[in-house]
Amino acid sequence: MTSKSYLVQMNVNGVIGNNVVNGKNLTSKGVRGNGFHQVSVNNSKYPAKVNSRRQRWDVRPSEMANKTCNPIRDIVDGMKLTPNPEKAMIALSIGDPTVFGNLPTDACVLQALKEAVESQRYNGYAPSIGYQKSREAVANYYNSPLAPLEAKDVVLTSGCSQAIELCISVLSNPGDNILIPRPGFSLYKTIAVSIGVHVKLYNLLPERSWEVDLEHLESLVDEKTTCLVLTNPSNPCGSVFNKEHLEGILKLASKHCLPILADEIYGDMVFPGCTYNSLATLSSDVPILSCGGLAKRWLVPGWRMGWILIHDRNNVFGTEIRQGLVKLTQLILGACTLVQGALESILQNTPQHFYDSTTSFLKANAEICFNELSTVPGLTPIMPSGAMYIMVGIDIDHFPGIDNDVDFTERLVTEQSVFCLPTTAFDFPNYFRIVVTVPAEMMVEACGRIREFCLQHYQPHRVDSSELDQ
Amino acid sequence: MTSKSYLVQMNVNGVIGNNVVNGKNLTSKGVRGNGFHQVSVNNSKYPAKVNSRRQRWDVRPSEMANKTCNPIRDIVDGMKLTPNPEKAMIALSIGDPTVFGNLPTDACVLQALKEAVESQRYNGYAPSIGYQKSREAVANYYNSPLAPLEAKDVVLTSGCSQAIELCISVLSNPGDNILIPRPGFSLYKTIAVSIGVHVKLYNLLPERSWEVDLEHLESLVDEKTTCLVLTNPSNPCGSVFNKEHLEGILKLASKHCLPILADEIYGDMVFPGCTYNSLATLSSDVPILSCGGLAKRWLVPGWRMGWILIHDRNNVFGTEIRQGLVKLTQLILGACTLVQGALESILQNTPQHFYDSTTSFLKANAEICFNELSTVPGLTPIMPSGAMYIMVGIDIDHFPGIDNDVDFTERLVTEQSVFCLPTTAFDFPNYFRIVVTVPAEMMVEACGRIREFCLQHYQPHRVDSSELDQ
Repeated sequence: MTSKSYLVQMNVNGVIGNNVVNGKNLTSKGVRGNGFHQVSVNNSKYPAKVNSRRQRWDVRPSEMANKTCNPIRDIVDGMKLTPNPEKAMIALSIGDPTVFGNLPTDACVLQALKEAVESQRYNGYAPSIGYQKSREAVANYYNSPLAPLEAKDVVLTSGCSQAIELCISVLSNPGDNILIPRPGFSLYKTIAVSIGVHVKLYNLLPERSWEVDLEHLESLVDEKTTCLVLTNPSNPCGSVFNKEHLEGILKLASKHCLPILADEIYGDMVFPGCTYNSLATLSSDVPILSCGGLAKRWLVPGWRMGWILIHDRNNVFGTEIRQGLVKLTQLILGACTLVQGALESILQNTPQHFYDSTTSFLKANAEICFNELSTVPGLTPIMPSGAMYIMVGIDIDHFPGIDNDVDFTERLVTEQSVFCLPTTAFDFPNYFRIVVTVPAEMMVEACGRIREFCLQHYQPHRVDSSELDQ
Repeated sequence: MTSKSYLVQMNVNGVIGNNVVNGKNLTSKGVRGNGFHQVSVNNSKYPAKVNSRRQRWDVRPSEMANKTCNPIRDIVDGMKLTPNPEKAMIALSIGDPTVFGNLPTDACVLQALKEAVESQRYNGYAPSIGYQKSREAVANYYNSPLAPLEAKDVVLTSGCSQAIELCISVLSNPGDNILIPRPGFSLYKTIAVSIGVHVKLYNLLPERSWEVDLEHLESLVDEKTTCLVLTNPSNPCGSVFNKEHLEGILKLASKHCLPILADEIYGDMVFPGCTYNSLATLSSDVPILSCGGLAKRWLVPGWRMGWILIHDRNNVFGTEIRQGLVKLTQLILGACTLVQGALESILQNTPQHFYDSTTSFLKANAEICFNELSTVPGLTPIMPSGAMYIMVGIDIDHFPGIDNDVDFTERLVTEQSVFCLPTTAFDFPNYFRIVVTVPAEMMVEACGRIREFCLQHYQPHRVDSSELDQ
């Protein structure tokens, strides 16, 4: 029944034979020690695969790990960000509304969480797609006559990131492609590339308030295209598509039978006077996976509470896609049960004035920024309508000696201690993104410094590279 | 700059040509309506790929989604679980210590969470690998002279499930294989198969308190083996390996230069009188990724707070594996920040008597179950030393008309309203697993019913299938 191993002392003289050599005497660097080697005498019922064993440590990360890449991290980590010691650093780069403490979540959101903790009813496992009651709460919150939703149409996830990951994963095989916006949120690409799915970038048009270049989008569709990713309201642009434009996109998706992953994490987070239409309310036939969560509108991104809303009135997804999503949720389960437990109360009780006060603040701050930078030579800010960002174009030809947006924003840190994210991080050159959640006085100060920076470097006469060569 | 589309009315007569046909007139079932079709007149700057467009809706789940499978779900869903209406159902199947309310978490765990909520310091994004301070807290908690740990060696995750997923993903490419225990927790296989990694099952030996069959394990190693998964204490066996056995496993891993994924989610959760050794404290050279979390020991599995402890004193993993883990955490970020914020306080302040009281309860309950079932004809319970399970062997040949463990447990529900998980769910036949977290009186009642069931069906004379054929 059992086999035996014998400890054999032998002088190996640096030669490793085909015998089974005790790897313990090999260090991690593969340098072999002297002495005892264990030789297995094979009287085993399990034949040993002698030749196939590793003789030294050689542990390498998987291709998936290697190719999983956050472009924002990569670009920021590659920048020399040494602030001017004489000026306090102002970071306008972080898409986290909580960092400055000026935008706290509503008291009733916190209260709901405390009650969930105290109840002790939310310590155990939830179903992998979330508690039924919490799914119902989300369905009720987003249900509308134009886009009816029930609990069965809701999958709860660990943040909107997991929602996006599940949607891309359920629709796409390696070698397929998805269409993503340029400029666009980098996570789509990060997720797709990590699982071997290609991305094709469709252009947003700055001159048309970042509407989709439909013609360009259409030209990218091929037989391997599994979904169209639409971000509305947009990160990084802060744009909000009007109804007609959304209908145009839906028409195109319908024509090419393309499901849409609608990233609506900034849904309803639009400035006073602007109307937000969730995509599903305009679709009669295109199946839509709408991704959202508590992160932005409720100002608690760390809580990792996200969801997928499955809109599929013509039953294109059928049960298969729904089951596929359920299967994928079983890999790591979903959101923290405490937050799930608080969800119904959060969605029902958060007062309208909380949402209104957030969007009013964001609009006011965006206006400060837009107005300030509109008169700065060499910059072209584009007024947003929602989310929490403003994009600013750089007339890079008028800044001699500054190569591009990365160089521009790097030097803005060195000289003025203001950090804005260069839009190369979003696959789009020569803009920078400003986060408008910072306190207003900080925004004013930052804009003043950006003005100073531009005034110092701006050259009214367009500088051709040919001139510079001379 | 822009191209135009013209709406052309034409009678298609059921023929779809190579023209671009407006998919909107095709229903999801591919039945084409009459009437208007839109033909794109291609004066575009973007050449259209006319032949490659989809003409009808055909959305299917990815292979990854299809092959992601939870065997427990599949088996349980396939069972006819109709309880005897005259007896209240007792579920001994659910690996969730919170379901009966008799094992609440400690008050200071709840207090830590409430304080984290009230502080409002944990609403924003954490780094994808977790707050530095929370990683430090975990490192301090598990640090020991034999297996030193610092914050840099800790990755926080969304539950132990994500920890396991990240570890398998960082070490293995599609086509590689990992070694997993049989019987064993099903998630390893679920995760591996979903990313195209093969599993090889090594035997645990019931007659040796579920120790690893080292010879069998060794026979499975080949050049594509990327890691050895070890579960200690064991789910589903409740076994706890002694020091000598762990050293034997480490010796083998060292010999074959195999990193170990040590699933130690039940670490320290051993019965009074039994000693638990974390694997890393015994390893001088084998690199170990130890996965754990709050779920079991602190009795809050829904909170999804897990971690990876990187033990790599000989620098086999180097920076590459660590960076690989960091990259993979960027896909969906990790654990809920509120729980991360509470972690230091939970680890520092949970009193020893809480842990002791849990393990004493589990031991007492396991003893009730073991003693009761030891005298039941046809059953062979194996006394556990830790975790929260007891395995019970079925002498299936003595139960004529009952095919196997699935059949046995199904009929136990039908007749006695007691549900135990058949170990076919763990790739191991003819045992069932009992969860010992249920209230003691429920355990007694359940064991009585199991006895009654066996007395009704047990045949002292061994039944050969040949006899049944006659």
